[in-house]
Amino acid sequence: MKLDRDALHDLYAEYGALIDTGDFHAWLGLFAKTCTYHVMPRENDERGLPAGLIYCDSRAVLEDRIGALRDANKYNIHSDRHLIGLPRLVQQEPQAALVEAPFAVYQTDQEGETRLFATGLYRDRIIAERSAVKFADKMVLLDTFAVPSLLATPL
Amino acid sequence: MKLDRDALHDLYAEYGALIDTGDFHAWLGLFAKTCTYHVMPRENDERGLPAGLIYCDSRAVLEDRIGALRDANKYNIHSDRHLIGLPRLVQQEPQAALVEAPFAVYQTDQEGETRLFATGLYRDRIIAERSAVKFADKMVLLDTFAVPSLLATPL
Amino acid sequence: MKLDRDALHDLYAEYGALIDTGDFHAWLGLFAKTCTYHVMPRENDERGLPAGLIYCDSRAVLEDRIGALRDANKYNIHSDRHLIGLPRLVQQEPQAALVEAPFAVYQTDQEGETRLFATGLYRDRIIAERSAVKFADKMVLLDTFAVPSLLATPL
Repeated sequence: MKLDRDALHDLYAEYGALIDTGDFHAWLGLFAKTCTYHVMPRENDERGLPAGLIYCDSRAVLEDRIGALRDANKYNIHSDRHLIGLPRLVQQEPQAALVEAPFAVYQTDQEGETRLFATGLYRDRIIAERSAVKFADKMVLLDTFAVPSLLATPL
Repeated sequence: MKLDRDALHDLYAEYGALIDTGDFHAWLGLFAKTCTYHVMPRENDERGLPAGLIYCDSRAVLEDRIGALRDANKYNIHSDRHLIGLPRLVQQEPQAALVEAPFAVYQTDQEGETRLFATGLYRDRIIAERSAVKFADKMVLLDTFAVPSLLATPL
Repeated sequence: MKLDRDALHDLYAEYGALIDTGDFHAWLGLFAKTCTYHVMPRENDERGLPAGLIYCDSRAVLEDRIGALRDANKYNIHSDRHLIGLPRLVQQEPQAALVEAPFAVYQTDQEGETRLFATGLYRDRIIAERSAVKFADKMVLLDTFAVPSLLATPL
């Protein structure tokens, strides 16, 4: 798949921005109709252990999960800030592109303290759907196995 | 306004780099002849409270303020490092573009310790002036209402 | 040298990604056949003091150094995560381009704790070699003179 660079940058910029503003409905719109979304420590991925922190192997499960996260979020009030590095095209396939991008997420709590929450790597399979690029498979590889608190928002 | 992507990237890259090297004269050159520059907590913005930490509603006020910051800076010696995420085109207008970009600022003090200083979002109105893109209105939305120390440099 | 923006973005994205996955062989492939690689505090650079933390003035020295780092790495087990900002073209020369990019590096230790390790600026001379862009001279300017621990991986 020939990947338009500007569209790719926009996809990642919107991905982070929509979580940070809490617009999860629009955020789901960045995923393809058939999609997966996984969060796991990079260690598990390197050792071939599939067990993850979030495991959504269909769009229906992802939508359910986002609903549940939004309820949990009521009791863990914070704001997120995503910093996402330049996306890197790792592999071209006829109908898809494998893309990776590093990220850091900061959280600010109700006392106004901002802390680094997590760093890691997005490893994504991106497809074109009705002339827009979308995440078909999104893997969030966390640098740590010890996430410091409840995953109340997606990463 | 049709926005050239490379020019947009350069504008943000220079914005951060010129603060970090302390070249505030060149930094002012990134703003349009008629411009505003505001720094406020995102909470104030979300609640519609206009009160901010820095409120420059004209270029003259911004230039004065930068002069004052540079004096204050003599007593709060540190160096800044801006990490700015991919800018996102939020809205096209006939003569301008609304653009947002996330940022993190780190400060290093005289003992050599580097700390996260602030994270937030730039929400900017960008125009073309004599074939260069410039900030017409720059809003710095901080994730926290509790900025840990004196704002001795712009954000 | 006319610099292709996409190729420049790829060069920086790969630079960080290859350190973070520990693929130092491929990482060396991002440097020109004749190259230098320096790491020093920005303070030394500003004062004209050439003394640095890592000083490789030829490709052979860089290759040796990378080998040594990999051995040292066995006793300082951690993982890196680079966040690199948008690269900025500072100067065009007939056969090269001077480019700067800010960075932050996070390290995660064996207990799973992730910390900010260093922030700074890459100041690079980039050339074209067999139709690929490569680092001819890479200067890593650290914001602090006090690097918190052993430099067991390149920055």
